[in-house]
Amino acid sequence: MAFLLVIIIILAAAYLMGNLAQLIKLPAVIGQLLAGIIIGPGVLNWVQSSSSIQHLADLGVICLMFLAGLNSNLDLLKRYLTPSLTIAVLGITMPMLFITWLGLMIQWPLKDALFLGVIFSATSVSITVAVLSELGKLNGRIGTIILGAAVADDVLTVILLGLVVTFTGERLNGQITAGLNPGLILLMQVSYFIVIYLVMKVGLNQLFRFIQRFKFAYANATVALLIGLTFALIAELIGLSAITGAFFAGLIISRTKVKKSLNRQISALTYLLLVPIFFISIGLAMKWNGIIDQWPLFLALTGLAIVTKLVGAGLGSKLFGFNWTDSLIIGAGMVSRGEVALIVAQIVFANQLLNVDQYSAIVGAIIVTTVLSPLIIKLSYSIK
Amino acid sequence: MAFLLVIIIILAAAYLMGNLAQLIKLPAVIGQLLAGIIIGPGVLNWVQSSSSIQHLADLGVICLMFLAGLNSNLDLLKRYLTPSLTIAVLGITMPMLFITWLGLMIQWPLKDALFLGVIFSATSVSITVAVLSELGKLNGRIGTIILGAAVADDVLTVILLGLVVTFTGERLNGQITAGLNPGLILLMQVSYFIVIYLVMKVGLNQLFRFIQRFKFAYANATVALLIGLTFALIAELIGLSAITGAFFAGLIISRTKVKKSLNRQISALTYLLLVPIFFISIGLAMKWNGIIDQWPLFLALTGLAIVTKLVGAGLGSKLFGFNWTDSLIIGAGMVSRGEVALIVAQIVFANQLLNVDQYSAIVGAIIVTTVLSPLIIKLSYSIK
Repeated sequence: MAFLLVIIIILAAAYLMGNLAQLIKLPAVIGQLLAGIIIGPGVLNWVQSSSSIQHLADLGVICLMFLAGLNSNLDLLKRYLTPSLTIAVLGITMPMLFITWLGLMIQWPLKDALFLGVIFSATSVSITVAVLSELGKLNGRIGTIILGAAVADDVLTVILLGLVVTFTGERLNGQITAGLNPGLILLMQVSYFIVIYLVMKVGLNQLFRFIQRFKFAYANATVALLIGLTFALIAELIGLSAITGAFFAGLIISRTKVKKSLNRQISALTYLLLVPIFFISIGLAMKWNGIIDQWPLFLALTGLAIVTKLVGAGLGSKLFGFNWTDSLIIGAGMVSRGEVALIVAQIVFANQLLNVDQYSAIVGAIIVTTVLSPLIIKLSYSIK
Repeated sequence: MAFLLVIIIILAAAYLMGNLAQLIKLPAVIGQLLAGIIIGPGVLNWVQSSSSIQHLADLGVICLMFLAGLNSNLDLLKRYLTPSLTIAVLGITMPMLFITWLGLMIQWPLKDALFLGVIFSATSVSITVAVLSELGKLNGRIGTIILGAAVADDVLTVILLGLVVTFTGERLNGQITAGLNPGLILLMQVSYFIVIYLVMKVGLNQLFRFIQRFKFAYANATVALLIGLTFALIAELIGLSAITGAFFAGLIISRTKVKKSLNRQISALTYLLLVPIFFISIGLAMKWNGIIDQWPLFLALTGLAIVTKLVGAGLGSKLFGFNWTDSLIIGAGMVSRGEVALIVAQIVFANQLLNVDQYSAIVGAIIVTTVLSPLIIKLSYSIK
């Protein structure tokens, strides 16, 4: 019963604040992220995170990225492979360098400073995907570049984290691939992409044709969802993030003939229940103690996190002939750290490399980048 | 990650076993209930129940009954008010009398025997609703009678439980209305139905028209879902069950103009994710220890639970001019005890009125009635 009340508050807050944001011409996502801060421990404390909420949020972001894959253009993604990769590399290098440097400036040990850098290197484009989808820009050139860069970003972050773990000799508990040979991890990841490629080439259409011979309600959507969840799970097991797996599952299913009906049904599931919970769950992590006590750290982290990603990813885009506005939009799209950085921060915190106030300041900075990213995207589009 | 694996197993098992059941011309629901027994502690022990699974299952049964309300015919329900009420009264009296008598026969104290009777008096029509909906019979005369009787059943069970609690002087912790004045409870319930009536009469169409002025994605379905969840929550708070509240929410929304689009979107959410989890969750409660140790109790309970409901509700139908087959179908529709009886059994168990083996035998009997109910319905339709 308590859970039912929590779900009612979450859905109502997401609905009202999303609507309000749209009324003042902002993306609904911003309203929903703020709604989470307001109803959570940050302000009203009506709702706290729980394992059930977190599980629903996880399903939400997986479905969101599955749908992003389902509505992506594989040919366009391939064509923009080089710019995507460049944007990812620059967008990771800049925050890694400057935020590690910030850590050293405030007298943190090198080890801690490096982990601080890693936390702010990873991007989550789930929020960006939601914004671009709301603006109807997800299928275009910019949306494709951002999605491609996000996938590259995920793979690169795993490598970066591996390097830092090896360099510092700090073994992270809670990270799934901890303790495995980096060569083995790389081998698994390469095999993973080969398997995805094979699944796509060999018979998805036949699979869906076979399924349809039995008149089972929602059969196609169920099987597609199962493929998405399984790809997400395997991606996590080999050290990638679940959303990358879900994105690829969506991408290969986008080539099948059942795409359209799937899309409608899985969208309803995703946007009616799961995604509002996911957006709200990010704001629920917000606490003020650390931000107040560590406000210089909080401000410096927020500023550097935004500027380094914006400049890194933006310059990467400029190199490939995008104009300044488009480069700004792409950079802004990569600024959002979202749940990916929150997870990395949580792992680092759980390994006692951060104290409570530092952790809370970092979480605050992550959330602020996540709220500002769609704002910058929207503003950039309006100057365009 | 562990949760993702659990969801994958649940959805895959529900899909495969549901399909298999349909292949041998049985309702998919039977396959899915069995799937829960197989993957749960009863057989393979791959999946155990958890708070997240239980929360998703709760949402599932609420959405299922909301959709049942949305697709019901209010005029028909009103027309069949008297037969529904009679069927409910007879369908509760028979198991209450005979199963309390069974308890006394095996030397249980009167108090314990009375609670045993209460456990098997309540009906859950959620499973029946799923079967009738699969057979395309939910909107007809039989479906309407069963839904009406189920609502009456819910109200009567609350009164019965109140009487037993008063008579035995046993105050049940965990039951929400425990300790409240029965008059007050009745007053709250009457007010609840008046509020529902007023909400329906006063302006649901205007509400949905107002909502549509903002171009928010899934706005109608979100607001409808919020109304369903809120009605369910309030119903629980005043001692009714959540599914009755959800059913009435669906029923009043069925009179609005947005019904059709809502139905499609909320159905996708419900049948893709939530309902398979709900069906599976029932089977997850199955354990054999108590059934083996207490097999005479288990068999006697199962037999009496089925026969008393079938005869009670069936005779009730016969009184109102239904032929034998239709009376059998209506009786069979009320046999399913499902999650409602599981919840009552859990409350009674938590108050130390049952030992572990007795509890497990009772849960076993509840699950068997739940699996057999759709089977009897299906067989009855095929002799028709």
